[in-house]
Amino acid sequence: MEYTKGSVCAPKGFKAGGVHCGIRNNKGKNDLAMIVSDEMCSVAAVYTTNKVKGAPIAVTKEHIADGKAKAIICNSGNANTCAPNGEEVAKKTCEIAAQELGFDTKDIVVASTGVIGEEMSIKPFERGIPELTQNLKYDGGEEAAKGIMTTDTIPKEIAVTFKVGGKLCTIGGIAKGSGMIHPNMATMLSFITSDVAISSECLQKILSEDIKDTYNQVSVDGDTSTNDMVVVLANGMAENKEIKEQGEDFKAFAVAFRTVTSHLSRKLAEDGEGAGKLIVCQVDKANSVEEARTISKSVVSSSLFKAAIFGEDANWGRVLCAIGYAQGEFSTENIDVKMSSEKGEILVCKGSRYFEHSEEKAAEILSAKEIDIEINMNIGSCSATAWGCDLTYDYVKINGDYRS
Amino acid sequence: MEYTKGSVCAPKGFKAGGVHCGIRNNKGKNDLAMIVSDEMCSVAAVYTTNKVKGAPIAVTKEHIADGKAKAIICNSGNANTCAPNGEEVAKKTCEIAAQELGFDTKDIVVASTGVIGEEMSIKPFERGIPELTQNLKYDGGEEAAKGIMTTDTIPKEIAVTFKVGGKLCTIGGIAKGSGMIHPNMATMLSFITSDVAISSECLQKILSEDIKDTYNQVSVDGDTSTNDMVVVLANGMAENKEIKEQGEDFKAFAVAFRTVTSHLSRKLAEDGEGAGKLIVCQVDKANSVEEARTISKSVVSSSLFKAAIFGEDANWGRVLCAIGYAQGEFSTENIDVKMSSEKGEILVCKGSRYFEHSEEKAAEILSAKEIDIEINMNIGSCSATAWGCDLTYDYVKINGDYRS
Repeated sequence: MEYTKGSVCAPKGFKAGGVHCGIRNNKGKNDLAMIVSDEMCSVAAVYTTNKVKGAPIAVTKEHIADGKAKAIICNSGNANTCAPNGEEVAKKTCEIAAQELGFDTKDIVVASTGVIGEEMSIKPFERGIPELTQNLKYDGGEEAAKGIMTTDTIPKEIAVTFKVGGKLCTIGGIAKGSGMIHPNMATMLSFITSDVAISSECLQKILSEDIKDTYNQVSVDGDTSTNDMVVVLANGMAENKEIKEQGEDFKAFAVAFRTVTSHLSRKLAEDGEGAGKLIVCQVDKANSVEEARTISKSVVSSSLFKAAIFGEDANWGRVLCAIGYAQGEFSTENIDVKMSSEKGEILVCKGSRYFEHSEEKAAEILSAKEIDIEINMNIGSCSATAWGCDLTYDYVKINGDYRS
Repeated sequence: MEYTKGSVCAPKGFKAGGVHCGIRNNKGKNDLAMIVSDEMCSVAAVYTTNKVKGAPIAVTKEHIADGKAKAIICNSGNANTCAPNGEEVAKKTCEIAAQELGFDTKDIVVASTGVIGEEMSIKPFERGIPELTQNLKYDGGEEAAKGIMTTDTIPKEIAVTFKVGGKLCTIGGIAKGSGMIHPNMATMLSFITSDVAISSECLQKILSEDIKDTYNQVSVDGDTSTNDMVVVLANGMAENKEIKEQGEDFKAFAVAFRTVTSHLSRKLAEDGEGAGKLIVCQVDKANSVEEARTISKSVVSSSLFKAAIFGEDANWGRVLCAIGYAQGEFSTENIDVKMSSEKGEILVCKGSRYFEHSEEKAAEILSAKEIDIEINMNIGSCSATAWGCDLTYDYVKINGDYRS
């Protein structure tokens, strides 16, 4: 497997683009994105478990019930959630896109992200979709990645190549998300494309399993969004023998897929609202993978620990506290905690007790941009990783005045 | 029932005091408190559900297994959690206090609050306990309330009088807690005294039921502390007929008790770390009380909503989002949200949709110090309240550098 340039347009037969259509006030920012496949795709998706859901989710679910899709349209600036006539607007968006593309409405995936509770007008779409359709490009991934951004500061893209049955295949992905991030079963927005030939059943199986270790292990602020959605399109243009069951090809795809999703998950945490530092928390020797996931996510979700990392303070007591209130029954008697970065590593807690260390050295290590927290539970053999970020003045600033 | 002066010393036969004994560096701040009853008390207690627990919790549990106690000793500045020889130090603390007071060691309740993971020396106790014992006063409640403070900015006290079987009775209480507050089954530190005659079984029943609607409905930052403890001492000196079963007297006590605990809960949220505003969230017409509690607590726990209140932004979409990710299965289709303060009230969401309102009027209402959020679920007949505070720059500041 190798990294390659671009993102959702890296696989064969995918065009994409982004424009400003008028949903956001800032004309310098794209607010509409499309990803279109030349051929019909197998499709898989996962959605937020928030009981308050964006209107596009119901429409997308209905459209991809047959396991097939050809295009994704997504706007930023308005979540189309708790908005009057939300589903009507989402359906109409698909109709306009279908007409411009010459597709069936049912082959369009629709998504929205932005402010909750504001009425969504169809007008910007009527203006923007024709313009966008005419400007789709086989290297338009970055424009699309920009079109789905809200408070994100950088577009998030990746692509990898790998072989399936001797055929060169590619997976590419984009993601957005910066605040309201604490996914549960699904997450923020992420769109992934591939030219692999694979059944929608296999695609769904890989996606549903994968998110448990990737998107669902990211937390910026503990708030599970109403509009989370991950959609994967695979158009088969790599001409491999279609993957219809578990086996070598299935595994090769799943491994490449994981590379894409874990990269994007990490990028989401790194660009968390107001974030100055990425926190990567790895838990080892837990009783089960589920337990390791829960513990690592509890640590990266702790406001107190996140504030300590902002302050470059090796306050490992807050790590122990967050482990202790993680759901589940497990021993907390023999925990080791190591903190590391490009500037070195330091053991701060051994056997759930203070381990003598230099506070100066610890502060030096925590002055880096990426902080790794390694937790050894010493009770089992299972591991998991979670991604988070520090809690900063800027988080408060951004969210104290998000709508203006 | 009437409010009266003082707190834990308001009931008959309770002395209290606080001193600086050297656990905290700041000599101007008390770091050791005692509350002592002239007579043997029935005792009840609830503790944190964090699996990482402060050493004093195990010692206190053992000491009050017989339902009896006469004194509480509590230090701030060091949580005695994940500290070497923690239980030994907690036991020794009780021994010194018992010796100075002329009590049995088993009649002493011990508690600690402060930094997790630092070694606790017995030396400050050896010096401080004799001094404190000699300076206990029948009006020393405020000194004790100050002795248990950490990042709290104000001592939290209350007392009420009421009648049981014609006898004038009193309940008084103090509490501390400012950060690491998101209690689960028990909470921060709170000590409550009464001169009512009541069995320890009845006392425990009232406490365990009461906390579900009071301390457990407070959230400052989502972090459940390792040292949470609520202890109630009742010494019987009001000379009422001992309350041994449910009935009129039991109810009179429970009502007065609720007044004390809900006052202290509110005070805890109001003085949350960095808090500029108190948020009181009342949920009505839910399917069950449990559901109403969960929903109201989810709203006051949302970082995004807390930041919006800091910014005086009536971002009701974040309220709906937090309702939506609250645990449980319930309809989110017909929710009304009203925001109010001493400056007026405004309906911002009706039937889970935007309800036309003036943003200027909303900002004016949110400029007050106490913000009431009323959520009508329109699905059942049950209500609950939760208390929280806004998320501010100061929260980040305090916790970015708590240990120095």
